[in-house]
Amino acid sequence: MEFCKSASQVSLGIVGLGAFGQLMAEHLAPHLTVLAHDPRPPEIVPAGVTMASLREACRCDLVVIAVPLAALAHVCREMAPLLMPGTLVVDVCSTKVEASAAMRAELPPYVDLVASHPMFGPQSILAGTRGLKLVLCPLRGRRAGRLAAFLRKHFGLKILIATPDEHDREAAFTQGLTHLIAHALLRMDELPGRITTRSFDLLKQAVDMVRHDAPGVRQAIESNPYAAQARSLFLAQLDAIRGELGAGSARPGMQIMRLP
Amino acid sequence: MEFCKSASQVSLGIVGLGAFGQLMAEHLAPHLTVLAHDPRPPEIVPAGVTMASLREACRCDLVVIAVPLAALAHVCREMAPLLMPGTLVVDVCSTKVEASAAMRAELPPYVDLVASHPMFGPQSILAGTRGLKLVLCPLRGRRAGRLAAFLRKHFGLKILIATPDEHDREAAFTQGLTHLIAHALLRMDELPGRITTRSFDLLKQAVDMVRHDAPGVRQAIESNPYAAQARSLFLAQLDAIRGELGAGSARPGMQIMRLP
Repeated sequence: MEFCKSASQVSLGIVGLGAFGQLMAEHLAPHLTVLAHDPRPPEIVPAGVTMASLREACRCDLVVIAVPLAALAHVCREMAPLLMPGTLVVDVCSTKVEASAAMRAELPPYVDLVASHPMFGPQSILAGTRGLKLVLCPLRGRRAGRLAAFLRKHFGLKILIATPDEHDREAAFTQGLTHLIAHALLRMDELPGRITTRSFDLLKQAVDMVRHDAPGVRQAIESNPYAAQARSLFLAQLDAIRGELGAGSARPGMQIMRLP
Repeated sequence: MEFCKSASQVSLGIVGLGAFGQLMAEHLAPHLTVLAHDPRPPEIVPAGVTMASLREACRCDLVVIAVPLAALAHVCREMAPLLMPGTLVVDVCSTKVEASAAMRAELPPYVDLVASHPMFGPQSILAGTRGLKLVLCPLRGRRAGRLAAFLRKHFGLKILIATPDEHDREAAFTQGLTHLIAHALLRMDELPGRITTRSFDLLKQAVDMVRHDAPGVRQAIESNPYAAQARSLFLAQLDAIRGELGAGSARPGMQIMRLP
């Protein structure tokens, strides 16, 4: 990503036009020349985005890989012979230890690498990008700082620099526990929505954000090496409370869940 | 509460000047003549509020009992011989089945009764009262409608009319589960706060509201006849997820919790 070029001359290749790839394409197309590759492109390609071959996408100054973590290593292997020296490659997976290892292992030593985790999705971006958090993990080369400056300037993002391990340690609690709680609530029958406290309304908003997460996010979160430990520490506290209060009995077919 | 009087002529007796009693006194003193009784009054009495004997507080047009649920029946017994025919008596406990039963049993048949649950506390009221929810359960007499109109007009509250049983069925989920989750998170060591998703930030806000709840609120929530069932249904889903994912192992003394 050469910042001696004017921004609109900088080319961005997006590999993977799923939910997050499209979101990124929409927001970046006004600022950069955007080529996107996806073997199964969406019905509606975001305005200003040109669909391209994987080779063309890999020839851009900046290449963002926006595929599920489970596909990352495979996609990197396909991209490896197509990338040019000095290209900056970035991923957007929800956990960083495994994603970083895959990129380091599969991509050639002459490309620069930054792992990233946008801590937001289609739901939280509705109110605009200003103040949303994005984690950058510089892996190889010295261009993370310039990327951070570009994202701060044009989108007002709050950029957090961390190692992949630091990211995963924190995200295991912040993202992992939020997902765990949200999934448990979503698996229950419909929750009441009339007689609610303000704190429940906030909890419900959090659950609704998780509900709209792209498929694959949960699997990525589960790949976090600290996920099981964070979950276990939280569940141990719930078990302790359960022991103190008594768990009560939920009878099958009980009619207290659905309210008029 | 005679609405043929101008509002400032209507007298309000508050029995119990704890956290919620004070909050109420501050907000109602500009609109009504407020007498308050508490055997252990706070160091700073809210402006416009006159401290009074229990007898004087009970002679007001409207008497609000703002004591913990555990003390409600006892306080009602003390008030019973002091109340005048036609007085409107209201409580503010967090669950309504047990509180309503106590008021019905202990207060004389010639006073009107409305059970209430303000679904907010000192934290959520900081941004103003408009749109905050308050549940009214009309128990005896016909003045719940006028009380609702007064609270809507002067504070913009959203008034929900429900039976005590309807209230407790919903609150077991909305308030009960929020408290359960919040208490489990609060019992963990300090949670990370830097690398956070928007949904975790919302969850954290909810937890912080619960953290500031008055003592006694948790005990009141536990008196909800549906609390154990709601908890059990939620924990059953967590157990199912634990089974699917594996609980992981939390080793004592593990160093992943406290982050720099």
